[in-house]
Order: sequence, then C-alpha cells, then structure tokens
Amino acid sequence: MSDTRLSIEEATALVVETLLRCKTSRPNAEAVARALVGAELAGQAGHGLRRMPSYCAQALSGKVDGMAVPQAAETRPGALAVDAAHGFAYPALELALDWLPDAARRQGVAIAGLRRSHHCGVTGLFVERLAEAGIIGLMVANSPAAMAPWGGKRALFGTNPIAFAAPLVGAEPLVIDISLSKVARGKIMAAKQKGEAIPEGWALDAEGRPTTDPEAALAGTMVPMGDVKGTALALMVEMLCAGLTGANYAYEATSFFEAEGTPPGTGQTLIAVDPAAFGPGAGARFAEMARLIEDMEGVRLPGRRRQALKRELAHGGIPADPKLLREIEAIGR
Amino acid sequence: MSDTRLSIEEATALVVETLLRCKTSRPNAEAVARALVGAELAGQAGHGLRRMPSYCAQALSGKVDGMAVPQAAETRPGALAVDAAHGFAYPALELALDWLPDAARRQGVAIAGLRRSHHCGVTGLFVERLAEAGIIGLMVANSPAAMAPWGGKRALFGTNPIAFAAPLVGAEPLVIDISLSKVARGKIMAAKQKGEAIPEGWALDAEGRPTTDPEAALAGTMVPMGDVKGTALALMVEMLCAGLTGANYAYEATSFFEAEGTPPGTGQTLIAVDPAAFGPGAGARFAEMARLIEDMEGVRLPGRRRQALKRELAHGGIPADPKLLREIEAIGR
Repeated sequence: MSDTRLSIEEATALVVETLLRCKTSRPNAEAVARALVGAELAGQAGHGLRRMPSYCAQALSGKVDGMAVPQAAETRPGALAVDAAHGFAYPALELALDWLPDAARRQGVAIAGLRRSHHCGVTGLFVERLAEAGIIGLMVANSPAAMAPWGGKRALFGTNPIAFAAPLVGAEPLVIDISLSKVARGKIMAAKQKGEAIPEGWALDAEGRPTTDPEAALAGTMVPMGDVKGTALALMVEMLCAGLTGANYAYEATSFFEAEGTPPGTGQTLIAVDPAAFGPGAGARFAEMARLIEDMEGVRLPGRRRQALKRELAHGGIPADPKLLREIEAIGR
Repeated sequence: MSDTRLSIEEATALVVETLLRCKTSRPNAEAVARALVGAELAGQAGHGLRRMPSYCAQALSGKVDGMAVPQAAETRPGALAVDAAHGFAYPALELALDWLPDAARRQGVAIAGLRRSHHCGVTGLFVERLAEAGIIGLMVANSPAAMAPWGGKRALFGTNPIAFAAPLVGAEPLVIDISLSKVARGKIMAAKQKGEAIPEGWALDAEGRPTTDPEAALAGTMVPMGDVKGTALALMVEMLCAGLTGANYAYEATSFFEAEGTPPGTGQTLIAVDPAAFGPGAGARFAEMARLIEDMEGVRLPGRRRQALKRELAHGGIPADPKLLREIEAIGR
C-alpha cells in the first residue's frame, strides 16, 4: 500500500468515468460508485475499487448489463419484487432502499427481494442506510457456491452474508455484518498467491477432507462458521434470497469475477422493520444494550470500528494502490 | 429410559390435568400440553414433560400466571403485538400463529412480537406450523443470560435460538432450528451431575477463560457457535425479540426453571413471509434445493430426522421416565 490517497469525490469520479467507457449508463455508474466508495470507507477494499477491472470486463463482455434499468413492482402492500435485470446489483438495491423505510413504517414490516442480481459488496452498508433512516434492517445475499451441506462434498451454498442494523437513540446505528464461512475466501486466495499454507479448519478439499493447501481448498469447499449450524444458516439464506425471489441458487450462479459466461443471477433479500411497530421505546432500548456492550472491557460493538474508519478516511482520503489506479485509468481507452 | 410409553392422548391429558391443579386455566393448560407433547415427539425431551415440575412450581408460586389471558393487538397491517401477560409462552404464541399466515398472504410479510413471555421450548415447531400452512417462518427467541459479547466476561445474551421453516412442494417442510451456543447448556448440567469434565471449547469461566470444569462453566458463560459471529447473531436476536418488542433482555430475565423471583419476561419474534410474494414458483424451488441436499451422501436435510421420529413416536408412544411420571402425578395433590 502506498501513500496515494483519493478523496471521496476523486474516487467517485474515477469509478463513474471508467464505467461510462464500459457500456454502462450514468445512473448505474453512479450507484456502483456509491457502493464501491462506501466499501473503501468501510475498510473493505476487497469490495471496493479493486473490483473495477472485473466489473468493467463484465460490463464490456455483456455478462453484466451496464445499461440495465432495474424494475421494482410492489406485489403486496409489504413486498417489493426487484428485477436487477442482470445489471449491477447496486442500482436495484437502491430501488429497494428507497421503498423500504416508508413501507416498513406503514406496514410494520416490509420485504424486498432482488432477482437477476450480481455481487452486492458490503451488505452491512445497506442495512446501515436503513438504520440511518430510523428503520431496523436485515439483509441476506447469496454468492457463487463455496460451502457444502454439512458432511457433503459438493458446494451448494455461497458464503452468504447476513447483515443487521438497528437505529440507536443518541448514537450511530449498530451494524452486524457476517459471512457464513469461517474465514473469507479472499484469505485463501491471498495464501495461494504468497505460496503459503492455510491453517487447518478453514477449508476442505474436493473430497471433503480438511486441507492446509490453498489450491486444494479453492478446488474444495469453505468450512462454515459454527460447523453444521453455519451450513443450516447458509441454507436459510439461499431460500430467502434465491428460492423465494426467483434468483439463482449459489450452485447455479457463475463467478462474480470472470468476464465470460452467463450472468450470475444471484439474489438479495432485505427485511425492514419499523422500531415503533410495537411501541415507542425500541430505539432507546437498543441504545441501552449497545452501551452495556461498549462499556465492557475488551469488547467492541459491531459496526463501531468501521464507523470510526469511515470518519478517518472521509477526512484523510482513501488509500489507493497506484498500480490499481493505473490499471483502472487504462480501462476502455 | 424405561419401557413406559405414553400415547399422545395420555401425555396431553397428563399435562392438562396436572396444570389444572396448579392455578392454570384450561385453555392455557391445553396450549402448554400441545407444546410439551410436540417437544417430546420431536425428541427434545428437555423441552417436554421434564419441564412439568418446574412449570407447575412456577404456576403455583405465581411466577408464571397460569390464568393469564394473552392479548394481541394488530398495531400495523403487518404487525401483531402480543402481550403474553407473564403467563406461559405457548398460548401467546398460538395467537401469533393464528394471525401470521393470513397477514403474510395479505401483506407479503408479517411480524409478531411477544413480550412478558416465558420459555418457548422448541422454536422449530412453531415455524414448522407456519410452513405447514404454506408460509415461510422465521423465529427468534431469547433466554436468560448465558453468553458474553465476544471478548467479554459478563453474559448479556441468551443461547437465543433461530428457527426457520419453508414449505416444499410435494414434501414435508424444511425446518432449521439452531441455538447460538456451541453446545446446549443442558450438556454441561449433565456433565456436572455425572461429575465429568467437559471438553475445552464449550464454555468459559467467570473470568472469561476456557474451562473444562462444569461448575466453573455454569458460573461463567457459554461459548457461542462460530465465535465472534455467533455473539453478533445473539445480539441481533436480543434486539429483534426483546429490544423491539418491549420484552426483557437476557440479562434482565430471571430463570426459566426456578419458582421464585419475578417473571422472566423474555420475548419471541416471528416473521412470516408468503412464498408467493415474488411469484408462483418458490415452493417448487425450495423442494429442488431440498432434494439436492437429501440426495447427497452423508448429508441430512434439517428437520427430517425429527419428522421421522415424530411419526415413529406418534405410532409407538412417547418414552417416559416412570420416576418423572410419578413426580408429575403427585403435583398439587
């Protein structure tokens, strides 16, 4: 990592201008920019600018339709069906995020389901937006197959994040964002690049046996967090964000990275709950629990580290790899 | 375990007649009977007849109000606030289960939150009932404090189950039911009774250090499943079923077992989703995923073992410990 730092405006302009050279509409490019810059500000560079070369290649090949216009239909008073139309996930997610707060306030609870979608980056950011609007958010998303049902060899489930956020009276939201594999797949890719072994317990080989070889791990499956319980949750996520919405299951989805092949067509589901649905005190009660946790020695409240980092980077700039920046600058020229 | 077996009718009558001797109304006794017999049929004896001595002692002491009449109020088109009124959880849960399917079909999604509630037994059974009515069910519940935030010493969260069920076209529902501790607290109590050590990794002592001593474990905290990710989920559950509903957090709740003290006042939250909310195919898609899992060697579909056991016990009778039966027979005489 070098000294190069981009302001939010610079990073945004870089993403937008580059995507405009890659068969992508301005509204879509802007939505992608908000998400990638948001990921950078969250310290999740793996979901940030680093995705640009692959996103652009997919837009150029047509695997992602950069000109797609996502469509939202209110199928029930509390349900929004969103067709991401094989475009980027973010413009479609924004349709859902625009609709959910009012729907939740009106109905008590509301659900939005995205189909024909794509990589959605840092799920925590989307529920955080709901919480900033005063709404409790729960989001699940699937990703290409990486985990097998417990005891099995074939990957049927993605590493499938679950994110949750709640508004706290007098404080920034609480934001939980976990993926259901024990460790991120990126850690195994990094070990492979460095030619290092991985610790036992991270992954299984294609025969379902524990392995410390990153190559064998990438050909096999990821170990779920919490073992059998983690695979049960991953199955729940598949059903909620794919079986329910008409999206592809993990095992039907193509890569989020490769530019060739059919679109991944994955899904995302968001559930929004009005904290006032059962009475006026929830925001204060959430803050009470959060305070107890924050006051505890050696403990961190989920989301706080990221919120602090965001303030720091918004002020000091987003660190950017000059080599990556040159690569992005060259795209589509 | 002995040979004594009770039919469903005998077990039901035993629970009802005994509770009627313990300041409990007939409708409440019948709801408790359905739940405890349901737990026995699910092979979850720890949530079955074995709870009767403690339930009856709590009804007699007034810690549980056996005469309570739970109240449900539709606070929004998609939200039902249920006051369990410090009675048993089950009659209040049944109010929620009666309302949720139609509300979900009408709204797309519906939520019911219980406050002033109590031990709710096998959460999987309630979402399974929703799935049998053709509705996707998600349920979370809290329980007295047993797990600390990751890195902390003081238990703030219960072992907080998450249950999920989905209807499958042409097959029994898929039912997921996990608690968020690595192992059930009952396993540690059993080890203590036998004077055995527990494996490292199950629990921490009061100073937050790993322990193999069941006494120290019971004075300390349970290890969450999936480590820090499990505590994040347990926090989410506390917020959804207590912070949101007006119920007590785990750290405010009294024991589900002891007859003395104030009522536990815990909470439960159920979210029901119409599988048809986003189109007609979800039930068939759920069945597709379930079939792939069932056809995989060495893998079990969540819920199937319990469903098979239920058929077996409904036919062959519920195994019952004669000593426990004598104890229950003697209650209130």
